[in-house]
This record gives sequence, structure tokens and C-alpha cells, in this order.
Amino acid sequence: MECSRRSSSRDVSLKELSRRLAEFAEDRGWAQYHSPRNLLLALVGEVGELSEIFQWKGEVEKGLPNWSSEEKEHLEEEVSDVLLYLVQLADVCGLDLGQAALSKILKNAKKYPLNNN
Amino acid sequence: MECSRRSSSRDVSLKELSRRLAEFAEDRGWAQYHSPRNLLLALVGEVGELSEIFQWKGEVEKGLPNWSSEEKEHLEEEVSDVLLYLVQLADVCGLDLGQAALSKILKNAKKYPLNNN
Amino acid sequence: MECSRRSSSRDVSLKELSRRLAEFAEDRGWAQYHSPRNLLLALVGEVGELSEIFQWKGEVEKGLPNWSSEEKEHLEEEVSDVLLYLVQLADVCGLDLGQAALSKILKNAKKYPLNNN
Amino acid sequence: MECSRRSSSRDVSLKELSRRLAEFAEDRGWAQYHSPRNLLLALVGEVGELSEIFQWKGEVEKGLPNWSSEEKEHLEEEVSDVLLYLVQLADVCGLDLGQAALSKILKNAKKYPLNNN
Repeated sequence: MECSRRSSSRDVSLKELSRRLAEFAEDRGWAQYHSPRNLLLALVGEVGELSEIFQWKGEVEKGLPNWSSEEKEHLEEEVSDVLLYLVQLADVCGLDLGQAALSKILKNAKKYPLNNN
Repeated sequence: MECSRRSSSRDVSLKELSRRLAEFAEDRGWAQYHSPRNLLLALVGEVGELSEIFQWKGEVEKGLPNWSSEEKEHLEEEVSDVLLYLVQLADVCGLDLGQAALSKILKNAKKYPLNNN
Repeated sequence: MECSRRSSSRDVSLKELSRRLAEFAEDRGWAQYHSPRNLLLALVGEVGELSEIFQWKGEVEKGLPNWSSEEKEHLEEEVSDVLLYLVQLADVCGLDLGQAALSKILKNAKKYPLNNN
Repeated sequence: MECSRRSSSRDVSLKELSRRLAEFAEDRGWAQYHSPRNLLLALVGEVGELSEIFQWKGEVEKGLPNWSSEEKEHLEEEVSDVLLYLVQLADVCGLDLGQAALSKILKNAKKYPLNNN
């Protein structure tokens, strides 16, 4: 089921997330609380929740072979929460997160050229 | 300049980032190091670097009115680093990050309905 | 009450915390789970909970003048949780945390001499 | 050498660290920057640096058997940095960190009684 859902899933963009989150906050009067440092601390809080999922597991294999679907759903939620605060943090700082991420990949490609590896 | 760059920037998707990062790691033989907990700790490291940018500033206004362009570029890089590790973490865990994020927004909309606010 | 408790409080040492935590884990058969990276991720989890306390508050004044006693107790618990995992992380790594902290203060004093400030 | 140093090390207390750090900040005119959220973000920054030490290592054994002395010293510094900011955060919040940590251990002992394990 997860596989089929993923194969059929459409390609979500950072700007779509940004628009939806801005609308969500605006509709609820929450934009006033979304200062950069508030959002940053909220992000740190979510990274903490993400870490808690992994904390007593010892090394975890790729694909999470022995995880229950409940655990995977919990993980999906926490990974999402981190992303949603990151998108909002970038927005209130006036950054274009998608463009910045692409630029960073290009910068990394120059820093670690293929010939040297 | 930043504004014009942003207005003309195309809409980057999570799957595009995912593809580029997988290729980048594969080309350099790094995929072997990309276990879930390795990537998670790398993410925590980048969140730390992001926090360091904000640590001695006191409250920061939306739009970062008094930041130098160097500071803003540094911020763009650190915000990007967090995103790039998050995308890779989701990938090695077999999650569809974009889909998960959309689902979380819908879940939040049910949790915080407009009428109650 | 908090003031009187604090003024009469004895001076807790890092080794005392270390001893108590080792005994606590041993008595419950938990020592087997206390690998360095497990404890590190548990620490990150607690730093997240600590951050959540501060996340929507905007700038907070020293002494937390407008916080309820419930909020302060919650904060005491989260600050403690961070410390308790940090002590245990240092222990399983074979480090002397108290000695290391004193050494770091001395190193900082050399790095930032009084004359230069 | 490390063993001998540790066996002969004296028992550092949290109040001693607190006193030394307050003096250090006061002498340099830094106390003005030590708001609760500034110190919290500095703590998050140090947790990030601590995580970076462990990020590409896969599972790490207790005692760090294959680590170089340089790596261990680096670890001692980062663990210390986390502690030093935690002590200062507790101080500016008006908390007695040592007492709070002892109380939390007692609370945990009630939450996880020996008979139930």
C-alpha cells in the first residue's frame, strides 16, 4: 500500500508547502507568533521528537525493515513537522528555500568534485 | 537582486532534491554512510549550525531587516543543509517526504479547525 | 519557597549524579541500552523538549518574571533531563565531565583574555 | 594517562561551575548577552557540534575503543560546552540545576519502581 501510494504520489514543491502553510497560519491568526527565533525553536523541538523515535534503537537499517506501520507513520509525522517549520522559518526570513537548496547542491558539487573521490 | 531572483525562481520539488542528492551520494560512493541514524545526527549538526547564526541576536524581526548579505547567505546555506539531510533521511527510511508533509498539513487542519479559533 | 529551598540546597557534584544514574540504570537492566549514540539521541530529544518550553514566548527575561510555578517546574525537569543524559553520555564514553568542564573554562579564559575585551 | 588523571580528579560541583561561569561572563561584559533564549540557542549549537562528532561513525562502542586521543579531546570539549551553556541557562532562569537534577532522579525512581522491571 505504501509503495503504491508513493509510486502514484505527485511531486510536491516547496512553494506549494510554503503557500499552504502561510494560508494555514493566516487563517488562524498565528502569523503573529511566527518570528524567526520562535520558528527556529519549534524546529528544534520537532528535531527532538524525531530523535526520540530513533533513540533506543541502536543502529537502524535503511528501509526500516522491522518497524511497525505505526512507527513508520509516527516517523512520517515527525519528519514532516521538521520540514514544515523549516519552510516557515525560511519564509519569515525572506529566503527562497528551494532555490537555496539547489544552490547548495551545486556548491557541494564544486567542493567535492568527482575526480577527487 | 534577491527579490528579482526569487520572483523569477522556478518551483523546486522535493523529488527533484531527492533525485539530485541520491545521484550526488552515489557518484561519490557516499551512500554506504547514509544510514538513518548517521543522517539524523548530521541533521542535528546542521540544526546546531543554524541555531548558532541566531544565538546572540536577541529577538530577530521577520525579513531580517538589519542583516548583512553575508549573514543572509550563511543562513541560506544552513537552512539548505538542514533540508538536504532531511530529504536524505526520509529517502533512506523509504518515506515520501512531500506526500507526508501534505498529509500532516491536512491532519493539522482537522486538529485546529477554523471555527474553533 | 523556591528561594528558601535554593538557599539551603547543598552543592551537588557531577560525580554524585554519575553514581546515582549508573546505579539507577544498573538496577533496572537499562545499562545495555546506554550506547553512546543512543544516549546522544536521547539528549537531543530532551533538548527538543526544553526548546518547546521557550518556542512561542518571544524574548524571555532573565529570572522568568511572568512564568507560573508550573512552567518553572516543567523547565526544571527538562533542564535536568538534558543534564542527566549528558552525564550518562560522558560516562559511557569514559570521560570525566567535571574535569573536562573545568579544563574548558580555563581554555576559554586563555582564548578570551581579559585585556582584549 | 587518562585513567590516572581521572582517578585523581576532584569532584566538580555544579555550583562551582556556575560561580566560575558567572565570573567569566561578568569580567568580559558578556552577561548582557546571556538572555535565556540566547543561551538556549547556544546550547543547541553545541549539541549540534557534539552530534557532528558522532555523525558518520555508525554505532559506537562504550569507552570509544578505536578513537584517537584527538577525537576524545574534541569530544570532551563539546560535551563540556553543552554543560557550560546548560549551567548558564539554568542560572539566568533562576533554577538550582543540581537540586533539580537530584529531584528528577527521585521522580524517575518513583515512575520506574524496581519491582515493575
